[in-house]
Amino acid sequence: MKELFFTDLVRDDLGRVEDLLREHYPGQHEAIGVAVDHLVGGGGKRLRPALVLLSAYLCGAEMAQAAFAAAAVEMLHTATLIHDDLIDGALVRRGMETLNVQWSPSVTVLTGDYVFAYAAYLAARANSVQLMRRFSETLMVICNGEIQQMFNGRHDPPDRQEYEQRIYAKTASLLAMSAESGPILGGAEESTTMALRTYGEQLGMAFQIVDDVLDYSATDAGWGKQVGKDFLEGKATLPLIIAFHCASAKDKLLIKKFFKKPERTGEDYTRLMKIIKRANALETAGQRAVENVETAKKHLKAFPDSPAKKALLDLADYVVSRTV
Amino acid sequence: MKELFFTDLVRDDLGRVEDLLREHYPGQHEAIGVAVDHLVGGGGKRLRPALVLLSAYLCGAEMAQAAFAAAAVEMLHTATLIHDDLIDGALVRRGMETLNVQWSPSVTVLTGDYVFAYAAYLAARANSVQLMRRFSETLMVICNGEIQQMFNGRHDPPDRQEYEQRIYAKTASLLAMSAESGPILGGAEESTTMALRTYGEQLGMAFQIVDDVLDYSATDAGWGKQVGKDFLEGKATLPLIIAFHCASAKDKLLIKKFFKKPERTGEDYTRLMKIIKRANALETAGQRAVENVETAKKHLKAFPDSPAKKALLDLADYVVSRTV
Repeated sequence: MKELFFTDLVRDDLGRVEDLLREHYPGQHEAIGVAVDHLVGGGGKRLRPALVLLSAYLCGAEMAQAAFAAAAVEMLHTATLIHDDLIDGALVRRGMETLNVQWSPSVTVLTGDYVFAYAAYLAARANSVQLMRRFSETLMVICNGEIQQMFNGRHDPPDRQEYEQRIYAKTASLLAMSAESGPILGGAEESTTMALRTYGEQLGMAFQIVDDVLDYSATDAGWGKQVGKDFLEGKATLPLIIAFHCASAKDKLLIKKFFKKPERTGEDYTRLMKIIKRANALETAGQRAVENVETAKKHLKAFPDSPAKKALLDLADYVVSRTV
Repeated sequence: MKELFFTDLVRDDLGRVEDLLREHYPGQHEAIGVAVDHLVGGGGKRLRPALVLLSAYLCGAEMAQAAFAAAAVEMLHTATLIHDDLIDGALVRRGMETLNVQWSPSVTVLTGDYVFAYAAYLAARANSVQLMRRFSETLMVICNGEIQQMFNGRHDPPDRQEYEQRIYAKTASLLAMSAESGPILGGAEESTTMALRTYGEQLGMAFQIVDDVLDYSATDAGWGKQVGKDFLEGKATLPLIIAFHCASAKDKLLIKKFFKKPERTGEDYTRLMKIIKRANALETAGQRAVENVETAKKHLKAFPDSPAKKALLDLADYVVSRTV
């Protein structure tokens, strides 16, 4: 992976966040500590904490408070992964066994709940009611999106609007909340908060689209996840949706057939990839991500130049430059 | 059930809480609304909201804020029940089918998460960072207690200390938090907050002990739950713990044998009841609950007489007067 130069400005603050993520609440069962350390120690890009800290810098927020907010969003993200992995039956996350492989479903449910509570506790320590409110609303949006998806079923490629709603709930909502943490804690005006919120939201949309493109285009070795996983699991993401809408009637039928099957094979994937290539769907999807990033950057225009603004602009470029 | 006269003082405020519990967050999936209405409409005693509202009255808190806190604790309680029922495989709660009977485990996990988030959202609307902090800490205590219990296993009768830790986490912690909501929102001194917190905690201990006694002594028809359920499920509660410690060596062995079995029968229950009766264990446990309630009431001594104080004293007496 590229070096994440945009985090230079907040390197010390990110260190403080790491400490917070590794603090154990008094009286907490040993197993929870092991689980949280395992998950949090697994790394990940810390994109969300960096976003909180940079937006805090930009808006002159108290950095000690911002560190709590940054730790809270990362912990919230971790909690959602615990329950998601249980629901999906995922075996590996961040290159390590998931909790549900090691523990019973019951302990996994409760550990996820505990980590939600711990995230809320960290958020409360940031000392802002408005932040707490946004924090809980964001978790509602995330859960609501997943429930929506479950009731919709997975057997038809969704349309673009449905896809966008889904990735907003899944990814962009938390990045939006991360980016608006700074102005909230800095007591910025509503228009500033909205600008950074939109920046985060558009960044999040781009981030998820790139992830979904990489699922088709990355090589197994560099990516750390199984290529083609979304398709094999019956998830229709943007490349497939674009390909579907451009496809011939015959290919449309074929794609529909893939999604009606209880399982999709490697051979199905190879056939789908031909349709995707014919439609130039990976490039079109990537272009969509670039548009989102451009919109994100536009929302920083009103801020005077500063190292924090530069870092946020670089962060936006990084999101669409991710390769394996 | 007796009429809950101690709620007279806060009848209107409880009405406001009911309204809040039935509000639907914009954009929320229809199924969540149905689930929340089903659970919240199921009634229950609204003991926790009453506690929040009465402590708010006692401490001169803004009642509109207190209504949010009251709705938040009831919603938090509801959320814990959703995941508990899933984990226990419970089929009936408050006389109605549980969510996990109607839905897949995945949707049930996510709906529980959503309701946690909604509870946090309601708590945030009470507009107090201190309350949010206590709210999230309480959820941590509840989850931690359940995880502890799972790792401890259920095959040996625990000692009294372990039992008390368990019921503190399970029940008393949330009642403590409910009772301290009033002083927190009213900006009371730390000593006042602590007094009401201890009142709530002792009340909660008594409440759970009475519940555990009723599990042995109630008749099926009036109780609404299956009598002897705790024992049949391998949960050792206070009556059994007391009986175990007073029992002859032979009876001790018998009780241990019961807990080593994968399942306990009605015949086992009949034999256990003889040991419990011989030890006078239901009365001793009931006496313990009365002691908790007396301690609870002592912590209200410093408050001048008022209708709110009277109601809180009555509420304490009600907890140990519960019969079927």
